[in-house]
Order: sequence, then C-alpha cells, then structure tokens
Amino acid sequence: MGIDIKQILSPLTPELEQVDRRIAAHLETGVPVVDKSAMHLFSSGGKKIRASLVLLSSGLRGPVPDGAIDLAAAVEIIHAASLVHDDIIDKSYMRRGNISVPGKYGNKVAVLAGDYMYSAAVNIAVRDNDSRILDAIAGATKEMVKGELYQIEYSNLNNITEERYYAIIERKTARLMAASCRIGGLKAGYGEGECNALYEAGLNMGYAFQIIDDTFDFAESSDVTGKDVGNDFKDGKITLPFIYILEKGTTAQKEALGRFAEDPDSADWDGVKELVRSSGAFEYSVGVAVKYAGVARDKLSIFADSKYLDIIRSIIDFIVERNY
Amino acid sequence: MGIDIKQILSPLTPELEQVDRRIAAHLETGVPVVDKSAMHLFSSGGKKIRASLVLLSSGLRGPVPDGAIDLAAAVEIIHAASLVHDDIIDKSYMRRGNISVPGKYGNKVAVLAGDYMYSAAVNIAVRDNDSRILDAIAGATKEMVKGELYQIEYSNLNNITEERYYAIIERKTARLMAASCRIGGLKAGYGEGECNALYEAGLNMGYAFQIIDDTFDFAESSDVTGKDVGNDFKDGKITLPFIYILEKGTTAQKEALGRFAEDPDSADWDGVKELVRSSGAFEYSVGVAVKYAGVARDKLSIFADSKYLDIIRSIIDFIVERNY
Repeated sequence: MGIDIKQILSPLTPELEQVDRRIAAHLETGVPVVDKSAMHLFSSGGKKIRASLVLLSSGLRGPVPDGAIDLAAAVEIIHAASLVHDDIIDKSYMRRGNISVPGKYGNKVAVLAGDYMYSAAVNIAVRDNDSRILDAIAGATKEMVKGELYQIEYSNLNNITEERYYAIIERKTARLMAASCRIGGLKAGYGEGECNALYEAGLNMGYAFQIIDDTFDFAESSDVTGKDVGNDFKDGKITLPFIYILEKGTTAQKEALGRFAEDPDSADWDGVKELVRSSGAFEYSVGVAVKYAGVARDKLSIFADSKYLDIIRSIIDFIVERNY
Repeated sequence: MGIDIKQILSPLTPELEQVDRRIAAHLETGVPVVDKSAMHLFSSGGKKIRASLVLLSSGLRGPVPDGAIDLAAAVEIIHAASLVHDDIIDKSYMRRGNISVPGKYGNKVAVLAGDYMYSAAVNIAVRDNDSRILDAIAGATKEMVKGELYQIEYSNLNNITEERYYAIIERKTARLMAASCRIGGLKAGYGEGECNALYEAGLNMGYAFQIIDDTFDFAESSDVTGKDVGNDFKDGKITLPFIYILEKGTTAQKEALGRFAEDPDSADWDGVKELVRSSGAFEYSVGVAVKYAGVARDKLSIFADSKYLDIIRSIIDFIVERNY
C-alpha cells in the first residue's frame, strides 16, 4: 500500500482537529441546507494535505503561530469548494468514498454550496488582515479556476501541447499548494527569501501531485481511491501519459490513442490502460513527477532540520510513492 | 414605459464606459473559452445599477476618486457572476434579452465562468488594499450566496414566513447594493456616519428593488424584461405577493394559491396573475416597496444636494416606478 498519509500527518492530529472545528465554525449558519451541503465533503474526511502544508510551513522554526489554524481552514475550504464544483462539471457521483455533493443535494444546491464555501474562505482570509496572505489566497483561487477553464479549452487531442499541460496543472493544482506553503511562512514571519522557497517547494509538490493523479487515472480502482475511475480519460481530457504517446509513441500507438480518445465512453478500458503501460508513458510520467518532487526537496534545503521539515519531506515522498 | 434608467444614468456615461473597459481588462486572459464566457453577459448590456451606486456615492462631494472605477467594476462582476450561476440553478435560457451563459456554453463552462468572475472581483478588491472595503465586498458576497440557499430552504409554502422572506431578500439582493453605496463612501473618505447612511440607503433600495422584482414576476412579459417570465413562480418560490395571500387572503384565495403552488408547471398562468391582482397582493407588495424606497430617500437626507444625489434619488424612483 505504499506510504500511509494518515500516519505521516499523525503528529499534526491536534492541530488538524482544530482545523476541522474552525471549518465547521466558519461554515455554520443554522440553516440546514447550507450547513449540510457545505459540510458534506468534510464529513467524508479527506487527506488535508493543503491545511497540513500551511501548518507545517508555519512551524518550521517554532510553534504553529496564532491564526495559522484559520488560514489552514481557509485553504482546505477553497480546495473542497473546487471539488464540489468539479463534481458538478464531471458529473461525478462519488467523492472520497461517499456520495458527492451534487449527487446527494443536486446541482442547484451544489453550485451555491461551492460559492458559499469560496466566499466563506475569502472572509476568513480578509479577517486575517495581512494583504500578502490575502493576495496569495485570492490569486491562487483565481488561477485555480482559470486552470480548469484552460483544461476545457486545451486538454483535447487537437489543442494540447506539453507546455499547455503544464500551464493547466500549475494553475489548477500547484499554485494553491504553493500558496499554502507561502502563507504558512508569511504567518510565521519568515523573510521573503524563505517564503519564496516555500512557495517554490509547494509549486513543485503540486506539479508532482497532479502528474501522479493524472497518471494513476489509468491505473486506479475505485475501491482504493474512493473516486470514480478513468474520469479524466472518459471526459476526453488529455494528460501527460497521452501527451507522451503523441510525441514519442509508435504510429500504431498514436492510432490506438486516437481511436480511444475519439469515443472514450465506449473505449476498451483495459486496452487504454495497457497502451499507457506498454508505451512507456506510465513510467515516463511517474519519472517526471519524481523530478518535480526532487526540486521541491531541494527548495526546502535552506531550512534547518526539524520535526516539521521531516513531515513535509514525507509528504513529498507520499506524493510520488503512493501506489494509488 | 415609466422612467428610463438609461436616461437617468446618462450623466455617468463616461465613467460607466471606463467601468466596462476595466471589467474587460480584469477578466481578459487571452484564452478564448475564459474570455468569451466571462464577458458574455456584459456584451448584452445590463443596467449597471450597482456600479452606478459605487460611482455616485463616491462623488457626492467632489469628483469620483481614483479607484472607484475599479471597485464599481468589481461589484458589477460579482453581480454578473451571481446571474451566471442563477441561470444554471434556474435553468434559464434567456438573460438580458440574449441567450444565457449556460444556454450558450453549457453548465460545465458556466460553473467555472461564475467562479472565475467571483475570484477576479475578489482580486480587484484585494488590490485596492483597504480592509474596510474588502470586508464590505467579501461580506456582501458571502451573504448573497447564503440568501440564495436560504431561499431554497425556506421559500416554499411549508416553510415561508414574512420574516424569512425579508431575511432572504436582504441577503440575496439588498446587502450588495448596500455595500456598493458604502464602498463609494469609504473610497471618497467620508466619515463613518455618512458611510453607514449610504449603507442603509442601499439596503433599503435593495429591499424595494427585490420586492418589485418579485411582484412583477406576476406581470412581466419576456418581450419587455428580456428574462423568462414567471420564473420564480414556476420554481415554486414563494415571494411577498403570495405571503400576503397566505396571511390576508380569503379561504378561496388560499386554496387557489395552494393548488397553483402544488403544480406550478401546469398552473394556469393567467389565473395566477389574476389571483395576485384581485387579492390585493400586487398592490400591497408595491406599497411595501414604496415604503422601503422612502426610507432609502430619508437616509440620504444627511447629504447636501448635488447632481449625483439627484441621480441616486432618480434611481430610487426608477426602482419603484418602473412598470415592468
């Protein structure tokens, strides 16, 4: 089963429980439809990697500072809001091993629940009252949504390039992780150089994370991940493994890819997975992720060893070594 | 045709054209799907009442200050984002006399276009770098979404009360108008008492605006408004005219209302309109709106007469006297 993220994050349990309580406090209104829909996704758990990155980055030189818990709650709410809207967009019925928000409450409530969660997170950041932190959070949120729209525009056989793929994953995933690390550093009062190093570490972690996610879309089983499988592929999204085949595959492999991508709904799923494996696309993509993970580790080398730095390093290991 | 809002706002034409240019500049990315979907609603015009309230409030004592244009753009983008998501929720195909964003680009793009617009507006407010203004904008946005969710929970025959109706319209409409007026005052550097008076004026304008909107849902023709007609009623939303019938109507009127509300899709539309008229609900609701408009006017009485104050007063007249 590879590395267990829950075990890696277990030293943070008290802080992450505080984050959970703050999330509930910030979202609670007393009106059933609001509270149930906004809290639904959190009731199914979730790894809380982004919240952890805020806490860990803020605690590299001393105790987690006041206010870091609320900011960790804010980034986790933003991430969850994006998942709620993604599940509308991708028509996903399952999320985190449970029914999705649109699956349970319908698209109507899910659109508003996501909007409410985004706006609640912004209000947490506004109350924190540090323009650099607010800028990091607001900027990352805008870029995240842009990344999703870039994906709709470019993530198809006609328009994708490797450059565009990286532009998409930087926005939709990497920048929020980068911002999570950076705001931890800002909250702790580190210098600009250290905050930038944290940002870069988070950015490279994010690249690695999304590439692994995209690659394992061709290997996953929903029993393990709690998500629908082959979602990206079935939506016609072209990710790194397919880009590799487009650029480096044999003529026969490219033709097979074209056939699959033309009608993903009726494509032979085992054949698709086999193509990704046999072409070397799977191995190549994992290798690229490992390279980004290495850059993330290097960026952190300016910090002295500490318990929290070790945990961040373990998160990086988890990102590239998890086998689901 | 009653009062023409375009004529009322014509002295603001140069500033509103600047607002249009700033909206485009803030939303533009160079990626077709983003730019087209986010700008679609603006290409159909719109009254720009909220942007005008920012500009007018900021110019009650002197020229419109630097930065008010960008803030006017921000509130207009927030309003437009809410309409894009409303059109998903209400499955509306028409908006502002044109096809809606979900109608043209599908729900997938429309969810993200709305998210992108919200996040772009937050970024404008963040860059303005005044925590009171940011607080007003972020707070109003969160309340607006909560208002929509309250509506889903309470705006039905079983749960509605007059108190809940006012809680809904305060959030979904009045607070953003209130915030628009308040941030104009903050940007211009007025004292707290004046900013609060502007907030209260905007809040009461918002109540009047939404009550008229809800009331004329029973009188509109789509030729005039550019929106689908009877939308609220067909969605089963119970608004002030129906609340009046529930509280003051005869037994026969209440029974007729129950029959219509039970199956709004096949209800006799002319019969519904006739019930709202003959019960006195229409007249009563307009009367309530007129009362709120009067409060809005009173709140503004602390300001010396000026060209811009006259325009705000004309907007208040427009809100309650427009006959569509």
